[in-house]
Amino acid sequence: MSVAVSPLAPKSYPDMPALRGVRMATAAAGIKYKNRTDVLLMVFDKPASVAGVFTKSKCPSAPVDFCRANLGSGAARAVVVNSGNANAFTGVKGKAATELTAKSAAAAVGCSEGEIFLASTGVIGEPLDASKFAGVLGDMNVRAEADFWQEAAKAIMTTDTYPKVSTRTAEIGGVIVTINGISKGAGMIAPDMATMLSFVVTDADIEPAALQSLLSAGVGPTFNSVTVDSDTSTSDTLMLFATGAAAEDGQVKVTSADDERLSSFRAALNDLLKDLALQVVRDGEGARKMVEVTVTGAENDAAAKKIALSIANSPLVKTAVAGEDANWGRVVMAVGKSGEMADRDRLAIWFGGVRVAVNGERDPDYSEAETTAVMRLEDITVKVDIGLGQGTATVWTCDLTKEYVAINGDYRS
Amino acid sequence: MSVAVSPLAPKSYPDMPALRGVRMATAAAGIKYKNRTDVLLMVFDKPASVAGVFTKSKCPSAPVDFCRANLGSGAARAVVVNSGNANAFTGVKGKAATELTAKSAAAAVGCSEGEIFLASTGVIGEPLDASKFAGVLGDMNVRAEADFWQEAAKAIMTTDTYPKVSTRTAEIGGVIVTINGISKGAGMIAPDMATMLSFVVTDADIEPAALQSLLSAGVGPTFNSVTVDSDTSTSDTLMLFATGAAAEDGQVKVTSADDERLSSFRAALNDLLKDLALQVVRDGEGARKMVEVTVTGAENDAAAKKIALSIANSPLVKTAVAGEDANWGRVVMAVGKSGEMADRDRLAIWFGGVRVAVNGERDPDYSEAETTAVMRLEDITVKVDIGLGQGTATVWTCDLTKEYVAINGDYRS
Repeated sequence: MSVAVSPLAPKSYPDMPALRGVRMATAAAGIKYKNRTDVLLMVFDKPASVAGVFTKSKCPSAPVDFCRANLGSGAARAVVVNSGNANAFTGVKGKAATELTAKSAAAAVGCSEGEIFLASTGVIGEPLDASKFAGVLGDMNVRAEADFWQEAAKAIMTTDTYPKVSTRTAEIGGVIVTINGISKGAGMIAPDMATMLSFVVTDADIEPAALQSLLSAGVGPTFNSVTVDSDTSTSDTLMLFATGAAAEDGQVKVTSADDERLSSFRAALNDLLKDLALQVVRDGEGARKMVEVTVTGAENDAAAKKIALSIANSPLVKTAVAGEDANWGRVVMAVGKSGEMADRDRLAIWFGGVRVAVNGERDPDYSEAETTAVMRLEDITVKVDIGLGQGTATVWTCDLTKEYVAINGDYRS
Repeated sequence: MSVAVSPLAPKSYPDMPALRGVRMATAAAGIKYKNRTDVLLMVFDKPASVAGVFTKSKCPSAPVDFCRANLGSGAARAVVVNSGNANAFTGVKGKAATELTAKSAAAAVGCSEGEIFLASTGVIGEPLDASKFAGVLGDMNVRAEADFWQEAAKAIMTTDTYPKVSTRTAEIGGVIVTINGISKGAGMIAPDMATMLSFVVTDADIEPAALQSLLSAGVGPTFNSVTVDSDTSTSDTLMLFATGAAAEDGQVKVTSADDERLSSFRAALNDLLKDLALQVVRDGEGARKMVEVTVTGAENDAAAKKIALSIANSPLVKTAVAGEDANWGRVVMAVGKSGEMADRDRLAIWFGGVRVAVNGERDPDYSEAETTAVMRLEDITVKVDIGLGQGTATVWTCDLTKEYVAINGDYRS
């Protein structure tokens, strides 16, 4: 398995500012790895508003079940995240492990177990020894500091080749607020699957229901529009916390997602979610090229997204991109198999700015040399106009390379 | 691109008997290839009953449109199949090419254009020069012979590594009838996609509507239960012809698919369709292992099939099989992402005969050595019991190897 940083990694990392109301610490609990941190504790000084979206898998991990149950209260005092073991498909032992972890965290932080949120990523099917957390969480709570985002992102990595962080500022009623986020994803540990975890915190003062609306709306065109290999983890977790510390600066609490004062915050949040989601794709296993697929002219937006994902998940399209081949025939195939309305004779397809097909056949003006130049780039755009309606969607994926197969098939050999 | 015969190819080929009422010839029309046959003409001495099933793609090829239009008449006098050019996404030129081909074939055979059926496989988006057929079809009709099945299968190959043939016998009311079939599939030509074509002929005397019912029912557990890479061709075509020559032996014409005399024929047809479908998978691009996925205990049969296909199409499952890794965590993931009802804590999973997981966790009696031995085999079975209902399904796929990526991504490099 390659440990080199993905060639698509960001060229620079942002300075992550401290954010009022949240402190973090990491520790090496020895869950699986040696010589690296594998537990993150995130502590909120006062109960933070909380929102979350989780995997749609019918076989979710025990921590996902746990978070869903606690989300109703709307208040969070701490988050415990571990790497090295996903606590997924661990039966009754998995539930017991989440309960023990929550109990340890609640004791360390001094809150109720209903205010604890959990996430785990790593090996599947192995019982998680949650007693290992009991020994470290108390000390972590004491050590926790605000200026610790980069280290937090590192502790939750599995086979990610770089830590994923992002920060934005916005204003709510004239008060400046900050949003920080970390993610991990596209990694793989035997015998596990790619899992996406992301934790976003703001010092804005926003009630839980409004926060949930913002997050649920924001995830559609960001985290729910990226795909590495079409496989959905049992553990995908994206949580958003609002510490409310901006109230000290006079920010009046937001109680509804329809509040007009949210326009700047909403834009900044969505931008941050997109940044984190694209960082996950850029760390896609074996990825050498980033692909942005835009579909226009579909019957409606949902149809456009289904077509775009059909293209982005097609092994034949993804191997063609890996081979730097502007193979629009495979794009036609992927449009056709999506099941959505399409009329062969109205389709137009572009790679980069080059229109390669129009009116259901090869563009007579299409330049092979121009197209080849486009396909050699690191970032490829594919655009398809269906020619039927107003529906549009954009999704992101990476190419499918021999390295992907090696990473996912070779480790036992 | 490798030209070696797939390691999963059948160890022997059946002797294909001549079948009364149908003759075949092949020719090298120079559509794309040099030094090989690329056109097949199949001629029925008298109008044969015809049935067909076609790609569900919303962007079908011109020949698929043509066949669908002619199917209503229920009668076939000739089939023209070419390899080297798919006549797909060729706009109005594509329709013109099918019309010209049909005209040439009708003139050669002496029938109406409504009795001609067409299929094309190969490059997509390139106009097909149908005038090349005009020069060869007349001669082919004269040369056509009954004992020619193996050669027929060869002429329609693209990057198939072996010709695919199958034969069965059955009885209808005490009269012995024969069913012969040929297929091509899992091949790939730049810039094309895997396309499955199959032509099955019987000397039984069966009316078109009954024939269509038999074929539509037979395709579900056979051709519609195999997947190489989840990508659906624009050109998939499976046709069944009945010459009716068995009437000479006293077979009384079958007019309904509910006719009890069809039980032997139905079983033989389904067995032949399964044989051909599995031959396609065994020639899957880069395939080194054949995988049979069986799901039991699902809510219903449709749910079982959706779960089975979710497993069979998962890149993570397929790369695990390539790596000889009994990675049941990825199977859980694929069950979970299918969207069908599943209860994590009732799942049980077997590789070969070895139960690796039960009641939502690793089987305590699971033997790593036994499982490893299973995964080293060429034919792997994966079984999942959902534990909820009576729904069952079996589908077939192959592993996902670096050779798949090489075949589909390397040819321009």
